[in-house]
Amino acid sequence: MIRDRVLALLRQVAHGHLEIDAALDQLARDPIESLPFATIDHHRALRQGYPEVILGLGKTTEQVVGIAERIAARGDGFLVTRASSDALTALESTFPAADINALGRCAYLAPAEPAPMGRGTILIVTAGTSDLPVAEEAAVTARALGNTVERLTDVGVAGIHRVLSGAEALTRAAVVIVVAGMDGALPSVVGGLVSRPVIAVPTSVGYGASFGGVAALLAALNSCAAGVTVVNIDNGFGAAVAASRITHASIS
Amino acid sequence: MIRDRVLALLRQVAHGHLEIDAALDQLARDPIESLPFATIDHHRALRQGYPEVILGLGKTTEQVVGIAERIAARGDGFLVTRASSDALTALESTFPAADINALGRCAYLAPAEPAPMGRGTILIVTAGTSDLPVAEEAAVTARALGNTVERLTDVGVAGIHRVLSGAEALTRAAVVIVVAGMDGALPSVVGGLVSRPVIAVPTSVGYGASFGGVAALLAALNSCAAGVTVVNIDNGFGAAVAASRITHASIS
Amino acid sequence: MIRDRVLALLRQVAHGHLEIDAALDQLARDPIESLPFATIDHHRALRQGYPEVILGLGKTTEQVVGIAERIAARGDGFLVTRASSDALTALESTFPAADINALGRCAYLAPAEPAPMGRGTILIVTAGTSDLPVAEEAAVTARALGNTVERLTDVGVAGIHRVLSGAEALTRAAVVIVVAGMDGALPSVVGGLVSRPVIAVPTSVGYGASFGGVAALLAALNSCAAGVTVVNIDNGFGAAVAASRITHASIS
Amino acid sequence: MIRDRVLALLRQVAHGHLEIDAALDQLARDPIESLPFATIDHHRALRQGYPEVILGLGKTTEQVVGIAERIAARGDGFLVTRASSDALTALESTFPAADINALGRCAYLAPAEPAPMGRGTILIVTAGTSDLPVAEEAAVTARALGNTVERLTDVGVAGIHRVLSGAEALTRAAVVIVVAGMDGALPSVVGGLVSRPVIAVPTSVGYGASFGGVAALLAALNSCAAGVTVVNIDNGFGAAVAASRITHASIS
Amino acid sequence: MIRDRVLALLRQVAHGHLEIDAALDQLARDPIESLPFATIDHHRALRQGYPEVILGLGKTTEQVVGIAERIAARGDGFLVTRASSDALTALESTFPAADINALGRCAYLAPAEPAPMGRGTILIVTAGTSDLPVAEEAAVTARALGNTVERLTDVGVAGIHRVLSGAEALTRAAVVIVVAGMDGALPSVVGGLVSRPVIAVPTSVGYGASFGGVAALLAALNSCAAGVTVVNIDNGFGAAVAASRITHASIS
Amino acid sequence: MIRDRVLALLRQVAHGHLEIDAALDQLARDPIESLPFATIDHHRALRQGYPEVILGLGKTTEQVVGIAERIAARGDGFLVTRASSDALTALESTFPAADINALGRCAYLAPAEPAPMGRGTILIVTAGTSDLPVAEEAAVTARALGNTVERLTDVGVAGIHRVLSGAEALTRAAVVIVVAGMDGALPSVVGGLVSRPVIAVPTSVGYGASFGGVAALLAALNSCAAGVTVVNIDNGFGAAVAASRITHASIS
Amino acid sequence: MIRDRVLALLRQVAHGHLEIDAALDQLARDPIESLPFATIDHHRALRQGYPEVILGLGKTTEQVVGIAERIAARGDGFLVTRASSDALTALESTFPAADINALGRCAYLAPAEPAPMGRGTILIVTAGTSDLPVAEEAAVTARALGNTVERLTDVGVAGIHRVLSGAEALTRAAVVIVVAGMDGALPSVVGGLVSRPVIAVPTSVGYGASFGGVAALLAALNSCAAGVTVVNIDNGFGAAVAASRITHASIS
Amino acid sequence: MIRDRVLALLRQVAHGHLEIDAALDQLARDPIESLPFATIDHHRALRQGYPEVILGLGKTTEQVVGIAERIAARGDGFLVTRASSDALTALESTFPAADINALGRCAYLAPAEPAPMGRGTILIVTAGTSDLPVAEEAAVTARALGNTVERLTDVGVAGIHRVLSGAEALTRAAVVIVVAGMDGALPSVVGGLVSRPVIAVPTSVGYGASFGGVAALLAALNSCAAGVTVVNIDNGFGAAVAASRITHASIS
Repeated sequence: MIRDRVLALLRQVAHGHLEIDAALDQLARDPIESLPFATIDHHRALRQGYPEVILGLGKTTEQVVGIAERIAARGDGFLVTRASSDALTALESTFPAADINALGRCAYLAPAEPAPMGRGTILIVTAGTSDLPVAEEAAVTARALGNTVERLTDVGVAGIHRVLSGAEALTRAAVVIVVAGMDGALPSVVGGLVSRPVIAVPTSVGYGASFGGVAALLAALNSCAAGVTVVNIDNGFGAAVAASRITHASIS
Repeated sequence: MIRDRVLALLRQVAHGHLEIDAALDQLARDPIESLPFATIDHHRALRQGYPEVILGLGKTTEQVVGIAERIAARGDGFLVTRASSDALTALESTFPAADINALGRCAYLAPAEPAPMGRGTILIVTAGTSDLPVAEEAAVTARALGNTVERLTDVGVAGIHRVLSGAEALTRAAVVIVVAGMDGALPSVVGGLVSRPVIAVPTSVGYGASFGGVAALLAALNSCAAGVTVVNIDNGFGAAVAASRITHASIS
Repeated sequence: MIRDRVLALLRQVAHGHLEIDAALDQLARDPIESLPFATIDHHRALRQGYPEVILGLGKTTEQVVGIAERIAARGDGFLVTRASSDALTALESTFPAADINALGRCAYLAPAEPAPMGRGTILIVTAGTSDLPVAEEAAVTARALGNTVERLTDVGVAGIHRVLSGAEALTRAAVVIVVAGMDGALPSVVGGLVSRPVIAVPTSVGYGASFGGVAALLAALNSCAAGVTVVNIDNGFGAAVAASRITHASIS
Repeated sequence: MIRDRVLALLRQVAHGHLEIDAALDQLARDPIESLPFATIDHHRALRQGYPEVILGLGKTTEQVVGIAERIAARGDGFLVTRASSDALTALESTFPAADINALGRCAYLAPAEPAPMGRGTILIVTAGTSDLPVAEEAAVTARALGNTVERLTDVGVAGIHRVLSGAEALTRAAVVIVVAGMDGALPSVVGGLVSRPVIAVPTSVGYGASFGGVAALLAALNSCAAGVTVVNIDNGFGAAVAASRITHASIS
Repeated sequence: MIRDRVLALLRQVAHGHLEIDAALDQLARDPIESLPFATIDHHRALRQGYPEVILGLGKTTEQVVGIAERIAARGDGFLVTRASSDALTALESTFPAADINALGRCAYLAPAEPAPMGRGTILIVTAGTSDLPVAEEAAVTARALGNTVERLTDVGVAGIHRVLSGAEALTRAAVVIVVAGMDGALPSVVGGLVSRPVIAVPTSVGYGASFGGVAALLAALNSCAAGVTVVNIDNGFGAAVAASRITHASIS
Repeated sequence: MIRDRVLALLRQVAHGHLEIDAALDQLARDPIESLPFATIDHHRALRQGYPEVILGLGKTTEQVVGIAERIAARGDGFLVTRASSDALTALESTFPAADINALGRCAYLAPAEPAPMGRGTILIVTAGTSDLPVAEEAAVTARALGNTVERLTDVGVAGIHRVLSGAEALTRAAVVIVVAGMDGALPSVVGGLVSRPVIAVPTSVGYGASFGGVAALLAALNSCAAGVTVVNIDNGFGAAVAASRITHASIS
Repeated sequence: MIRDRVLALLRQVAHGHLEIDAALDQLARDPIESLPFATIDHHRALRQGYPEVILGLGKTTEQVVGIAERIAARGDGFLVTRASSDALTALESTFPAADINALGRCAYLAPAEPAPMGRGTILIVTAGTSDLPVAEEAAVTARALGNTVERLTDVGVAGIHRVLSGAEALTRAAVVIVVAGMDGALPSVVGGLVSRPVIAVPTSVGYGASFGGVAALLAALNSCAAGVTVVNIDNGFGAAVAASRITHASIS
Repeated sequence: MIRDRVLALLRQVAHGHLEIDAALDQLARDPIESLPFATIDHHRALRQGYPEVILGLGKTTEQVVGIAERIAARGDGFLVTRASSDALTALESTFPAADINALGRCAYLAPAEPAPMGRGTILIVTAGTSDLPVAEEAAVTARALGNTVERLTDVGVAGIHRVLSGAEALTRAAVVIVVAGMDGALPSVVGGLVSRPVIAVPTSVGYGASFGGVAALLAALNSCAAGVTVVNIDNGFGAAVAASRITHASIS
């Protein structure tokens, strides 16, 4: 495509339809466009069927709503993550059509044209109830990016039969996201049970020497089940994007 | 399959072909088999077309060769990782058919029945020449697990045009493994360029405040490109297994 | 017991009292039950004479009270740990029969059938007055799990005669829990004085380079008195459960 | 100059115009002045055309305004950094002539005699919008110290074309300050693009394993682009002073 | 006993058989003996049926053998831990009666009078083969202190059926020691399966971000199975002493 | 003294003025008293001329005032450290005779009999104005323990002439306490200038990579001036006690 | 220049001297060249008067000499850093014209056309004799990049008069590199003495709690002298490149 | 003294015995001498009765012996610390009069004029036998600086009676140096027993989570005995210099 655009420009020059100086300016002004990447402007790529993402963290309610309004005004959808409860309330009243997820601290307004669906189900497994906010963030994000989401909840390894009982769901999933704090043992157990991609999200759940999720992070990085990958602490959003890269890779 | 086996057993009991006590013993002795997991015995699963993996680290040459001989004797293949140069020399003379990769510290003996091929190419990108041993480990592992591997070498971000020149290879890959030490900046750049799954392998390359790869690890975990996942420092093996989970997930 | 249940099921099949399919379903639906563990469903185990534990941390007062009501409704007791003062006030008015421990941030409602008593006394030793909340949590938990608790308070090593004066209590105890922050020196001294099990609970007491209890944690892990074990920082609850495992092990 | 002063003193002694004791006292009383440094009293140096700097952090509004009034009273200018919004409001009403920068948490009152202008432009590059407060602090400081400031905003490496589009500004700058949190990858990319001095300011932006800016700090220290230097986390002020040392060094 | 000794001394004074000054000296010289601790001289306590322990780490072969000879000369037994292979060879030839454990880096010479036997079996569970040296150290120590030891080997959680298969052994044990490196997930799983005391020994097995066992240590400290206690990294000796405190506590 | 007490007791027994059993009881009940330490009961030692110390941190205003009242009631003095402003206000109104130091967060009520004076002056040197609260705590404590205190303020090494100007005070001091945050460079400079004892107090002043005083702590521990000792971060109280141990050691 | 090249190409197309397809190929094959950066291919930039840099760390002697020979063969110069003594010996005999610096672990072969000289002197200040290897690396690098280098050696702050004696050299320098381990206090003192750019190189000199240079690194990052910048631990090479960016910036 | 020297110089000028230029040169050449510090040139100060100190760490045997020879040649004594066994052997044969301390890795050649004796005894207390090398370094240093040294060995807190037995020695000492690794509990116990200055030297003794002495360092910094000061890990030399500052302070 880009190749075509440059080809056209060179043809215009060759045929005298474009001045040399104008052609030079055009190439210089937008050098990136001359690179052979389809995805080079990832903002654009994301806009095609994907909502724009607004990280609510460190933004005032006014800022969050303002950005959301600008996006909605041009007809696009948005996904707000890490929104304060204030921001969620404001978004709810401004955008009645938006889905508000208080537990996951997210708000989602679907774009006119929905995201293309990925292949297979993303299963989100949680160790304990305090991992739920992170799991919700992952679930909302995954759905917004065009995925079917299943959940397996409260299956921490201290009661190992709980995760074993989820065998069917584990076997069915195309990708498994494992959300676990404290000792971060669940990703290793799940990684040994399934042969599909497993993404671990360590959470900051725990106290004392959990060091805000470092214990769970290190456990996940050192998983004795080969081929488990890891995202940042509490980063449910990132895990969902990673999972969605997988489900969409197999169809493109 | 397991369901079938239990069904058969129950039928035998019902038809009087099996004593109740014998049936009970059989169920009790191997309780795991009664769980509805196809993959529950992952050793077996790996053996079907996959080589067995021997971690050379902390084993003597005698131990490594001994285990390898036992595996080869029963007709299976093996993959030795983190082998000392001594162990590699011994493996080379004992198994003339094995592939020895000195840079990647690996030895590979293909099993009789090769692993099923994954879908698409795994591209392994390295930032600098000192990341090559880890990249080699990933490449050998990925191939042993049934994957086509491509390489993009020495494209660190200090000369950003180098990675941009690799556009075609990046666009072509089904999964991208990015191996980078020092500042660990390459995964973020690659993660922004491609929409496919990106797995970062931080390496212990660097000195002073690189802290044996911690700097690169933290950079990868905090990647500003959403959806980049991470494995342990220098864990080329793990990255390849993770990538292979993806390429094989889409065909099973 | 489980063996009996499976035996009965097989007998029903053998005698034609149960269809093969129904037997299969029953085994498949609850695979865990077929494992030869008495304790496999630890929730159940805990319910038999033990209160259910609700970790108050990160839960709203409504959530805490709600869960507690559900438990009490089915006739069980509960132990709430890390409860906010708001939650404690609410629990106090909702459950007049509950014991409220403000210092230990706990609320305890005894179950109808009390927990079986462990053998011997659990002695809880504290270094300073600021270790008391953690010690209280341990004491309340230990009692709820069926233990006799003694206390030795404010016997930090800077006045070594204080712990020496507690000789009699130390000698009498079946298990000693040592709660200490700052330099974490007390577990080593106690571990040298008694031959019974000693469990150290490092506390986050201290400022500057105590790093939220890390100094005390490391001291406990490196105790020069052999055989001292350690639980997480401020984890009075965990120490009491560990101690109760010991006192109940000797009677079962 | 100092040599001259001591020479004169010794001459006075030699000619009997100064008592030995008086000479001794004079040398003893002000030992510093006898050192051959032009810059030994850096307070004085800073006062000549530079504003005095008041670090607002940990000071009450009363203290900040009080110090500012004392400085203004003697006709000097001031730069308040890390001011609370309260302090900024108070400064605004007390010093109508002062420039208040809410985002950068700074207030600046120009001195009567402006600082001598440095040579060339200081370009401040930011990776994301949350790096802006630190960038503002740098910009206000740089201008107060007599520099022309340019900005390149929101050019994080996840969309590599963004920083490449800033080529012209990057080429034009005498010094480049790169403000980046999360993975801290931007300084390496910029350091590879320009041959002028590059100063990295890691920011505490990010969550989870960014550890309050440590990830970005380590990335900057391990930059694969040679010759990138680093200042403390969030230290926009320090980066601007360092840049100003460079722009003023070339003219003195 | 001590009470008796002081009583006797006072009687001697009362009856004029001992001078006041001599009595004073005797009390002053050995003040500790007047404390009501049976265990105050733990060296003596250990000598009664227990071997003396020599930490081989940082001692030359000559020093280790020398100390061992001095102990054996007075008829006592010894346990050497962390012995170099040189030291083990020397001990083997000097003490033909000693048990040499090369894998566990231990040498043990039984004392004339064996240690009193503890109640119940100590089960030592290992996650992987590289955890074996630490497990051996624990086993040798536990046996030397008068315990029956059982082993459950290579039951890491990546193949969860392996530990489940050990159900019988787990149920039988009085105390369980769980030795695990890498992600340190095994103690949590075991802690959920059994109700007896569980002691976790994190090992330094792993590479990259295992940080010499810190990952496994933190996982163990944050175990989601309540009441798991922890000893120092690789401290098989300490775990065995802790376990032996438990098995002997229940019989004294 | 203690020796005298035991001597007296033995004499009573020898002379038949005390029953053997009563003597035994007396020795057994208070075993510590029989140890030949003058300082064994340090509470007592402190009471002789020293105020009792109340650490205000983590205590409510009611608790602080309550303890203070109990001490004052028996005629002793007290020193409250780390008091909240609330507590200081309450102490001020309850004890009009007490000295309230808001900056140092201390309140001091002199005991009836003042502490014996130490030999020489304690000089407290501070690097910057934000180190003053810690310096004040040290000053108040030192004076309460019977010391003459001098101050050298705001002499950070960035203006090296400032500390050099303090030569006279430095030379005069018996002990120097150096309070410094940020880079912690001042203790090294002072340690090189004086031959008397130098005690460094790192402070938590600084932001970003000062890590709450860790940077200054490490600098002090690694001082290139031999013989500088260090106390905990922000521990002005501890530094003053250490200095007072020195000034009083030389007179006892 | 690049603009000129593209202009020429477009002219060739316009005048029919170049086929459209050939022009397209030329632009596509080397897209980077079309970006308006003078320095985009920094390899080339470095080759113009600069030696190529070979990091010796982790390379065999054969590899180092091989790369050096390839560079020398095409007439360029080279700078080998972090060379082993073996590599230095081999380089010395292969390249008699090369300068070998054993202390700085460097070898330098001047290119035919020397690097353009920077403006002003780079002064390299060291705290102690053990900082010399890092200082030598900086000195050799700075000279190779076209700079005049001065040295001020062994002026650690424990003898503050030593650095003060260097006043003249400090005042004369265009840029000051301060190499210091242990407490890292020297950069702060130097940063307060001079107004020119100061670059701190923390070294791994020190033991115990210097943590391989972390103490000095943190001290430098927290320098109380504003505007001091920092490079990685022991990174003399990086400091020299940074200094050379400054000296060459002022002349371009 | 310095004052006297300047006075004399001024007198010479006044009386015409010294040319003005010569006087100026003399003051300028050594400007530091004009500061009113007795100790400003600490090299000189140390030479007066003190040995010069050579840190053996990181120096070759040739370098160590060479420096020692240069010092001895001008009639001074020396103290070599952290000497390799090679260096000790070489020093022993070169300086037959030197005291060689293999355990403490020190060599000491007494200067002609011995150091002035400090007041009182320095007591060096060690927790375990592996702390002895550090204790020896402290002992040799303390003696070389003119102190009487006593020792209390192997009195770790796991057998608390051992340190209590040392009551007399503890009471007698002017300063106590406590050398302890592992849990670092001994300084707190000693600090509570004596009222004299206590200096803690954490040692790197221990394994696993002792982190090379960090556990003991943190314990010492957080000592619950007020007024304990700390030096760097394994820094026996520094502790002895600190102690000697105290014993010599009281006599000057």
